[in-house]
This record gives sequence, C-alpha cells and structure tokens, in this order.
Amino acid sequence: MLKVYGDMLSGNCYKVKLLLEFLQIEHQWLHLDILKGETRSTVFLKKNSNGKIPLLEISEGQYLSESNAILSYLAEDTDFIPEDKLQRARVLQWLFFEQYSHEPFIAVARYISLYLGLPENRLEEYKSKHDGGHKALAQMEAQLKTNNFLVGNSITIADIALYAYSHVADEGGFDLEKYPAIQAWFKRIENQAGYIKMAR
Amino acid sequence: MLKVYGDMLSGNCYKVKLLLEFLQIEHQWLHLDILKGETRSTVFLKKNSNGKIPLLEISEGQYLSESNAILSYLAEDTDFIPEDKLQRARVLQWLFFEQYSHEPFIAVARYISLYLGLPENRLEEYKSKHDGGHKALAQMEAQLKTNNFLVGNSITIADIALYAYSHVADEGGFDLEKYPAIQAWFKRIENQAGYIKMAR
Repeated sequence: MLKVYGDMLSGNCYKVKLLLEFLQIEHQWLHLDILKGETRSTVFLKKNSNGKIPLLEISEGQYLSESNAILSYLAEDTDFIPEDKLQRARVLQWLFFEQYSHEPFIAVARYISLYLGLPENRLEEYKSKHDGGHKALAQMEAQLKTNNFLVGNSITIADIALYAYSHVADEGGFDLEKYPAIQAWFKRIENQAGYIKMAR
Repeated sequence: MLKVYGDMLSGNCYKVKLLLEFLQIEHQWLHLDILKGETRSTVFLKKNSNGKIPLLEISEGQYLSESNAILSYLAEDTDFIPEDKLQRARVLQWLFFEQYSHEPFIAVARYISLYLGLPENRLEEYKSKHDGGHKALAQMEAQLKTNNFLVGNSITIADIALYAYSHVADEGGFDLEKYPAIQAWFKRIENQAGYIKMAR
C-alpha cells in the first residue's frame, strides 16, 4: 500500500491528501510534526535526505518527493491530468507557477504569521511577501474570471496545487474579498466528491 | 514554426535553447533584453501577462510559459523524458527541486553579482543565498556520485534544467571545485551532439 509521510497543517502535504481522497486511493498516512522537528530525524533523513515532506513511499525503499511531482505521479491516467499534450503542459505551467511565484510568498507569509506568531524580527520579511502574493492571486483571478478551472473544463491537479495555500491565504494577511473569481472556484473545488478540509 | 521569446543570458531561457538544439527542432528565437526592460513592454505583456521569459509561441496566440513546462512539452515522446511512469515522476521531482531549492539561490546570487555588480544594499541578500545554494549542489553531488545522469542512464530534461544555472554557479560565488561529480556531469552534457554554450 502507498505510504505518505506528511503533516496536514502543511499545504504541500494537504495537496497530496486531497488528491488521494478525490481518487479514492487507499493509502497509509504517516504523520510527522514539522514544528517538532520530526522531518529532521536520522530515520526520516535516510528516507529523504533533504528532510522535506510530503514524501511518497511507493514500495519499500522507493521514494518520491516534491509535492507537485507526487501529484503528477498519482494523477497519471486519471481525469486529473488531461490527455492532450498542450493541456498537460498547461497543467505543469500552473504547477511551476505555484512553486515559484505563489508558495514562496503566500505560504511563507502564512507560516510567519500563523506558526511563528509574527515575531518582530520577521515582520519586514512578512510584509515583503505581500506584493508577490497579490501578483500571483491576480494571475489566478484573471484566469478564473473566464474559466471554471485553471486548465480545461474540469478539476485537475493544477487546481488542487493552487487551492492548497490560496484558500488559507487570509491567514497570511491576504484579503481574499478582492478575488471573487477565486472564491467561486474555491466552492467548485469544495463541492467535489471526496473533498476534505485542511487541518487548521 | 515554433517561436521562443528569450534572452540567452538567462539560464531559464538557455535551458529551452539547449533542448531545441539537442532535438534539432527548427524554431525562431526572438531576443528580448531583460535588463533593458523589454519583457515589461505593452506588446510583450499581451503575450504573457506576468512579463516572464522564456515564452513559447506554439501557434499564433497559443503561448506556454514556465521554462520547465516548456521543456516538458518539447521533450514529450523523445528520449529526453523517460516512458516509465516512476522515472517520469523523478524527472519532475528534479524540475520542481530546481525551481524551488536551486534557482532562487544560485541564479539570484549570480544575478546580484554578475548583473547588478554586487551593490552594497544587496550584499546581505547575496550572502544569504549561499547556504541554500550549497545545499542544492550537495543534493546533486550525492546523486551524481553514483549516477551518470540525474534520472536513468541517459540525459533527460532534468539534467538540462539543472545544468543551466549550475555550470555558471561560480559567477554567483559558489566554488564548484568542491563538487567533482557535478563537474564530471557537466562534461557529459557538454559532449552531447548539438551542445551550445550559454551567452556570457
């Protein structure tokens, strides 16, 4: 059975959980507490030397890391990745956008605020994340104004990847009221069969 | 014919050029000078609203952005992406690693040093990039100590993506002498038919 090492407080881990639930794939979820340093233990570093979760264990000793690579692997040959070559590339385009232009701003601002309690010595860094985060949300808003989903007419792993940190962006100081198309898209994702909430 | 908007001084653009040369795909290269602000022009922003290059024009009005999504699109059904599902996912794992854990450190340190001339007000940021960059290089070194290429036994787009900024990391202040396996891998890539140098 597939095993996932993850922490449901992390959006990167939650993405994987959400897809597993949508696809009804049987799996074992092995909770690791990032804040307690459980991803830095000797045992875990043997599984993934960069100490990051989520980590997928496909079979004994066969691991796959990087949340969006895990999503791609699990979604292969399902409706969550289009068959058309260009549409597939557009899904990847959004996945790379998520890791480069979205997560480093929105997830990091949320982390500093929610988990670290917005300490004085990180206030400047926290503030510096807002321009980039709003730029990413504006890109999504523009796309979702005229499309129900980020790529094509049904949910793909692009939506799952971007949903994870977008829907809790308010916890990083982003006012989501400004993005009505994104909010309507949240509801479309939340109405999918199998949807589960992120741990908060 | 495929068109690519790019600047050969940018590693993200160079990746795409290198793959096009390896695959001998006919294309038109449209040079945009980032430093002159040509990616922020009204004309270009209509093509790609986030103002980023490389940008692939597949047909009139059909664009694809994100360098690693472009690599994936161009490499589909070639030897540069493995057929095996898990091997494909491992290629993606390295591509996401590149955009999240490698480029933001190594490319940014190089940019601050080479293009901005290491100004006083960005010295601290420049220094802060070195730990993360060395961590990324160490991950690659560990993989390449026992493997000729990052995934499987021949060159894939994972190698091309990671090569782009790694082989000029010295210009960002990274001493590459510490990484003999990476240096041997540089040579294997440079020996591929069709190899061209990055603009310097």
